[in-house]
Amino acid sequence: MRICVYQGAATFLDVEGNLAQMERIAKAAAAQGAQLVLFPELFLCGYNLGSDAARVADSVDGQSTRRAADIARRHDIALLYGYAERAAPNLYNSAILIDNAGQTCANYRKVHLFGPDEKRIFAPGNDVVAVDLLGFRIGIMICYDIEFPEFARMTVLKGANLLAVPTALTPPYWEIPTTIVRARAYENQVFVAYADHIGTERDLTYIGLSGIVGPDGRDLARAGESDVTILTTDLDPARYEASRAANTYLVDRRPALYGSVASR
Amino acid sequence: MRICVYQGAATFLDVEGNLAQMERIAKAAAAQGAQLVLFPELFLCGYNLGSDAARVADSVDGQSTRRAADIARRHDIALLYGYAERAAPNLYNSAILIDNAGQTCANYRKVHLFGPDEKRIFAPGNDVVAVDLLGFRIGIMICYDIEFPEFARMTVLKGANLLAVPTALTPPYWEIPTTIVRARAYENQVFVAYADHIGTERDLTYIGLSGIVGPDGRDLARAGESDVTILTTDLDPARYEASRAANTYLVDRRPALYGSVASR
Repeated sequence: MRICVYQGAATFLDVEGNLAQMERIAKAAAAQGAQLVLFPELFLCGYNLGSDAARVADSVDGQSTRRAADIARRHDIALLYGYAERAAPNLYNSAILIDNAGQTCANYRKVHLFGPDEKRIFAPGNDVVAVDLLGFRIGIMICYDIEFPEFARMTVLKGANLLAVPTALTPPYWEIPTTIVRARAYENQVFVAYADHIGTERDLTYIGLSGIVGPDGRDLARAGESDVTILTTDLDPARYEASRAANTYLVDRRPALYGSVASR
Repeated sequence: MRICVYQGAATFLDVEGNLAQMERIAKAAAAQGAQLVLFPELFLCGYNLGSDAARVADSVDGQSTRRAADIARRHDIALLYGYAERAAPNLYNSAILIDNAGQTCANYRKVHLFGPDEKRIFAPGNDVVAVDLLGFRIGIMICYDIEFPEFARMTVLKGANLLAVPTALTPPYWEIPTTIVRARAYENQVFVAYADHIGTERDLTYIGLSGIVGPDGRDLARAGESDVTILTTDLDPARYEASRAANTYLVDRRPALYGSVASR
């Protein structure tokens, strides 16, 4: 599969502007032969929402999803992006995967909310999501989720071989896109695509460093900290057969001993 | 706490020779003011044992432990090292922690055995070990164990704030001492000390890269791939208060959702 990771700044609180940006990127990605574009967390409205979240939120089958589905169909490309989801009485920090026919394949609600702002605005999701598309099984996680190794493992145990992670990362978290994201790929023997914002929204500045990592833990592509960047590469699981033979983690696990991971 | 990590070659199949080496290192470490020395996996006999394991194995309270306890007392320093443990009818790939008074504080049996050779020679352990010493709670894991994020997490959930990991690492596993070990430190907000062999035993060559990593995921000390190296540094948890405030992983976990990690 040819994948694009889009690192850019959302137009803050401007869903129309971000749909227009999404269409430009989808067109450029399709021109490169990509079959899927991954956008950052809450890309459709901007991340640092505060009390504006409710007015830019939309339902999973609302107008913004229909508009994105049109873009996917028009450019024959799948889209995965973050948005603020309204599902009364709650708001969720969600990510939706729309295929090239405009069908919604998955809607994931962030399970691990980060910090007091997210916890005040959003309700947490409770589900692991992994869905078949383009010859992969795509697990969706959002930002802070991937920092929890047990949660990435659960997604992989559901069969995911590509973790797609919209994110919004601020200082001082430079270790995460490199050390942590690479470790998740290596220890689970999966691909990880990680799409971050750049620029500044109110009091938050984002640190970019979006990347695509192979099952051997090495970067296939890596963006810098502050520029609009489109990463495009081909994901070929067959190239990693040697590393799968060397790292038989999923076979060598001892789940019968692991109960305390799930104990409250 | 001042800790030493010893990266060196065991004298293959020569327990006496390795006890003599241990005494030299303990003396040198004590002279640097260290309170604990960590040695590699199966350091007392060498790692690549094959059918020689039974004849170099000893019980947890056997003569080799008594000799190591003498060394600890004589040099007023705690020792943590790997050895082949005999506990009829089994052999275990174990690591023992002896305090500066010569008392055995903990005996850990490797839970995740690596590859067909280890699985043929040794029975697997089934216990998580974390024990209080020198103002820390030391979790003991051996080599392959730390590559399983759920197992490191279990050790930390038992209160460990220092993971001490004797290891024996061969090509092509260069990502492990860096990416994986740093990720374990960062995602659990703990120190990790990782002591590897160097040199060659029969068909195996070891890759060194022993290290000591802080709770912020950064190296406090790191050895090269092929030389005898003693890493000495002070572990000061107070220096990491800012990173603990930034990364509240243990509070933000959602264990009620994590059951599938422990499902067979």
